[in-house]
Amino acid sequence: QLLAHINELFAPKAPLLEGVNVMISAGPTREAIDPVRYISNHSSGKMGFALANAAKQLGANVTVISGPVNLTTPAGVTKVAVNTAQEMLDAALEHVASCNIFIACAAVADYRVADVAEQKIKKTDDSDEMQLRLVKNPDIVATIAGLANKPFTVGFAAETQDVAHYAQDKMARKNLDMIAANDVSKPEQGFNSEQNALTVFWPTGHQQLDLADKSELAQQLMALIAKQYAAQ
Amino acid sequence: QLLAHINELFAPKAPLLEGVNVMISAGPTREAIDPVRYISNHSSGKMGFALANAAKQLGANVTVISGPVNLTTPAGVTKVAVNTAQEMLDAALEHVASCNIFIACAAVADYRVADVAEQKIKKTDDSDEMQLRLVKNPDIVATIAGLANKPFTVGFAAETQDVAHYAQDKMARKNLDMIAANDVSKPEQGFNSEQNALTVFWPTGHQQLDLADKSELAQQLMALIAKQYAAQ
Repeated sequence: QLLAHINELFAPKAPLLEGVNVMISAGPTREAIDPVRYISNHSSGKMGFALANAAKQLGANVTVISGPVNLTTPAGVTKVAVNTAQEMLDAALEHVASCNIFIACAAVADYRVADVAEQKIKKTDDSDEMQLRLVKNPDIVATIAGLANKPFTVGFAAETQDVAHYAQDKMARKNLDMIAANDVSKPEQGFNSEQNALTVFWPTGHQQLDLADKSELAQQLMALIAKQYAAQ
Repeated sequence: QLLAHINELFAPKAPLLEGVNVMISAGPTREAIDPVRYISNHSSGKMGFALANAAKQLGANVTVISGPVNLTTPAGVTKVAVNTAQEMLDAALEHVASCNIFIACAAVADYRVADVAEQKIKKTDDSDEMQLRLVKNPDIVATIAGLANKPFTVGFAAETQDVAHYAQDKMARKNLDMIAANDVSKPEQGFNSEQNALTVFWPTGHQQLDLADKSELAQQLMALIAKQYAAQ
């Protein structure tokens, strides 16, 4: 019995996500106004790339679908570069068939410009105002989580108020298996900072991940995702 | 006479812009929509920073007023970091009194959002559209060039059509001493590329600077600016 216990302790374990295909969306999207102007957001992509690295370390096959970022892709991770929300959805749908876990970490633009100008819009002297008509972008995480053979789908909620309420509502409404919520109104965490704190919800529980470097936090979150994925 | 000529050839010359204060605006500006979203443009800041480096090499005292960029500030150059057009104007007005040459290389947002939301705007299910009301930003280069004791002022014109016409019109209308025009509809030059080509206009002439690396082009343009500045 002692020997069996020792053998178990020293047995080479298969990495937690060996053979599991993980797809992660990361970074902002950019929605063109005209050839030179665009709408975007403050996402740096750091959290998504840190998750990609953590998943890779756990043995997963990792594909990152990333908006424009200034980050090095972790070794062994496949990166698909996109600009707009529509391009990100197209890439996600293209890769979803073989995907076991999808983590929607990108800060996707909710709206795009209705009529993108083909030439640079000239400033005119006769009007001091301009109206920009925006239309809704496709909802990437809801589209993926709505598929018949959906992967284990993890969403993010970046909120500035009433974080837990909005996050749990979003998880239910979009058919997610897990959601990681952070309060971006706090200056020390979120978008462009090196650190973050998260509250992670799943249908039967939740866990607080305290303020930490994004690389460390990504390891904790990825371990939690792997555990819930295995438990389903 | 021969000796005088030889002495002149070998005399240590003062650098072309020794003691001259050069202020350069660079990069894009970012105009907030809400705490997480913004409007910006594809300017990388490379041309402005290359001009700063070239001016420094010619002996100038250089201040760069820069929007958000991912660039290293050249050694010996002072950088003032800003986000919005209004912040860039404020910084330019603060530094203009001691400024001899102002090069407006930044891609300043012509418009900002009229009513910036204090909380992240929630996507609502009941409307598929959203109107964004924009108001004109202050015109930084025209404001500086309109000052009683204006510096020698150089503007840029990034156009997608009818480049020479728009550039010369802009120079006259904004009281500029020089304008450097480029055609950003050509994929190999402009905003995010490493190379650029410019047509430089001043009231009594113009010169074409052919496609070259931005660092080389910046040296050519800076030499041209120094020559016209000295000739005034």
